[in-house]
Amino acid sequence: MSQDLTLNQRFVLASRPTGAPTPENFRLEREALPDLEDGQVLLRTLYLSLDPYMRGRMSDAPSYAAPVEIDEVMTGGTVSRVQTSKHPKFREGDLVVGMTGWQTHCISDGSNLTPLPAGIPSPSMALGVLGMPGMTAYMGLTHIGQPKEGETLVVAAASGAVGSVVGQVGKIKGLKVVGIAGGPEKCRYVVEELGFDACVDHKSETFADDLAKACAQGIDIYFENVGGKVFDAVMPLLNARARIPVCGLIAGYNATDLPEGPDRFALLPRTLLTKRIRMQGFIVFDDFGDRHAEFFSAMVPWVRDGKIKFREDVVDGLERAPEAFIGLLQGHNFGKLVVKVSDA
Amino acid sequence: MSQDLTLNQRFVLASRPTGAPTPENFRLEREALPDLEDGQVLLRTLYLSLDPYMRGRMSDAPSYAAPVEIDEVMTGGTVSRVQTSKHPKFREGDLVVGMTGWQTHCISDGSNLTPLPAGIPSPSMALGVLGMPGMTAYMGLTHIGQPKEGETLVVAAASGAVGSVVGQVGKIKGLKVVGIAGGPEKCRYVVEELGFDACVDHKSETFADDLAKACAQGIDIYFENVGGKVFDAVMPLLNARARIPVCGLIAGYNATDLPEGPDRFALLPRTLLTKRIRMQGFIVFDDFGDRHAEFFSAMVPWVRDGKIKFREDVVDGLERAPEAFIGLLQGHNFGKLVVKVSDA
Repeated sequence: MSQDLTLNQRFVLASRPTGAPTPENFRLEREALPDLEDGQVLLRTLYLSLDPYMRGRMSDAPSYAAPVEIDEVMTGGTVSRVQTSKHPKFREGDLVVGMTGWQTHCISDGSNLTPLPAGIPSPSMALGVLGMPGMTAYMGLTHIGQPKEGETLVVAAASGAVGSVVGQVGKIKGLKVVGIAGGPEKCRYVVEELGFDACVDHKSETFADDLAKACAQGIDIYFENVGGKVFDAVMPLLNARARIPVCGLIAGYNATDLPEGPDRFALLPRTLLTKRIRMQGFIVFDDFGDRHAEFFSAMVPWVRDGKIKFREDVVDGLERAPEAFIGLLQGHNFGKLVVKVSDA
Repeated sequence: MSQDLTLNQRFVLASRPTGAPTPENFRLEREALPDLEDGQVLLRTLYLSLDPYMRGRMSDAPSYAAPVEIDEVMTGGTVSRVQTSKHPKFREGDLVVGMTGWQTHCISDGSNLTPLPAGIPSPSMALGVLGMPGMTAYMGLTHIGQPKEGETLVVAAASGAVGSVVGQVGKIKGLKVVGIAGGPEKCRYVVEELGFDACVDHKSETFADDLAKACAQGIDIYFENVGGKVFDAVMPLLNARARIPVCGLIAGYNATDLPEGPDRFALLPRTLLTKRIRMQGFIVFDDFGDRHAEFFSAMVPWVRDGKIKFREDVVDGLERAPEAFIGLLQGHNFGKLVVKVSDA
């Protein structure tokens, strides 16, 4: 039997990046996996999700989650098929969602694996519109954003995995929705395909003015996942009692030093005070992890009925994961970025 | 009858301050008040409240409330006695609370006047522990702070009108309460008289270290009314899921320019995200103005039974109001600052 060893390919963290990650921060390794023990399953990865939060895990600065250690497999959400099972709860052929990381195979004791949710048309959606990004969008908008019909919602990274869902849920809830995206192609998609009321190009020289014009009634909810210059343009437009759910700050993830002065630190607390704004960071599985049922019961029908559209940016082959991830942090992807690791 | 005109003395805003206010920004005027018309009352001010928010009203920068206009009476909360009434709802001798400003007398149509709340041992308390500052403390701590027994609460300006109540309510709710105040005398008062668990002197060179030592379990609620260096020391100590009610930022009220760089703007959003913190500005009468009954039913018994102690810093005579207000912004007061304008 042990002649029949499974060869696993995996990316480990080779070194911690300074600023933007480079291919040298990742190392592709091959290893023979041991035989399964009772209570274990052997998983074959179908899809690996690439998400901005992974940049944080590559650093050892204090954050909401422990860093990936050097020589450890890069963390990541996956959809996998059970190839062999010695676990009573899983059968060969089952599809499961887990955090099994950047690798082609994984031996698991079954903890932290969940069956692919019922009613999902295609497996990769469990990593996007019906997975962590979609749930981040839904929970942040509804529970922190607390939308009221007729209000103005601004969504950064509007064509991305989170932003695209935020805006479409916002439309369903009766909001005026203004997206922010990089470049005319993404902006056109956001308005014409996703149905936002407007979308402003943050690469334009007239970005701040364009945003102000698109938000003639000010901003009641700003869904923050970008930071940087985008937030600078949003801040003066915020209305009294605005809400700002914060699920990411991708513009700053590769920053090494603070920018030059003056020190604008005090501007944000002052804005929160004078406009009586609520700003709240959240991590969806930590803060809303017990609300999957609520999420699926709202979202699955919307997706099935075409009320929520989505777009995937599928990269073929695990070996391309580092390059795709580096591009993600620069906004090169268009839609939810997933790596197709093996055929179904 | 018109021989018997009442002489009013009042401070108007003579000019807008650049940086810290000076006595020249205020002008004392005398005016003869006209005869009362039907539906009006003539009020004689007993106590004028002096509060940090008034600095904001002296500027015409955008804020949550309209600025005081040049030559207009300075705004301010007061307790007054009805001297003459041609209004069916008020009788001569009644005590009322209102926003009648920095003046000895006022003619009012009765709108925005409320009777002195029942059960108040002395009139000036309606401007402090049982008035706007006390209600700011109570609502911000309970509704935004959402305290849970055993958590650590840090209170800036701990000996002041708001902070002293925040900390004492926190003790009643079972929190560990650490105050921050300026100088050993205030710190001693906060611990020995008000019953906080500890109080740290922000004027000490070892302030940040002292605060870290006093908050060995981190900070779960930071009640913000100061900003500046105090917040810089608080920020690294905040726990995951901390709450930060913001009712004031007195350290920055006199600022004219932004400090020198580097630009630390991004540090606060990053902290809110990685620690999943809720930070929320509020103005008590705008955001919780319909909750007076809840406030009085909790606070009046606590004050009457000595569970909530308070201290007033009473300045005698309206003419001293500008000097007292300028000192308030520098932390010279000790307890709730009120001006005694006339005898009861």
